[in-house]
Amino acid sequence: MNKKLSAKFGEVIRELRKERNLSQEALADKADVHRTYIGMIERGEKNITLENIQRLAKALNVSLKSIFERLEKISK
Amino acid sequence: MNKKLSAKFGEVIRELRKERNLSQEALADKADVHRTYIGMIERGEKNITLENIQRLAKALNVSLKSIFERLEKISK
Repeated sequence: MNKKLSAKFGEVIRELRKERNLSQEALADKADVHRTYIGMIERGEKNITLENIQRLAKALNVSLKSIFERLEKISK
Repeated sequence: MNKKLSAKFGEVIRELRKERNLSQEALADKADVHRTYIGMIERGEKNITLENIQRLAKALNVSLKSIFERLEKISK
């Protein structure tokens, strides 16, 4: 598993979540995923699927495109 | 599984592959995935992971951001 990519992805999710003043639990509830799952994603421990990327995007009220736009900014 | 999203994703991958005049086999070789896998992705039959999205992006020489930009254009 590409740890760098999932770590960067996790960083973007944490950033977006904090901007929205959501706890990991609150985001998990909105996205309908398990509470521990958000922590694992944010720490880059999971190779997330497209379906779950979309769930998080919807819960964070952000487009898929802008998630990856942020991810690429981190990469530079 | 959200079939709509994976179907749209598959459409984008097929479009990018054809623009590059690559066969499914050639793309599979470049991305180091199984040959049948590309067909499944293009038909929207798989909930692809972030790691494999990146493999395809690299093999297609395109950024993650532009994949999702295209995906959102299809969605409208």
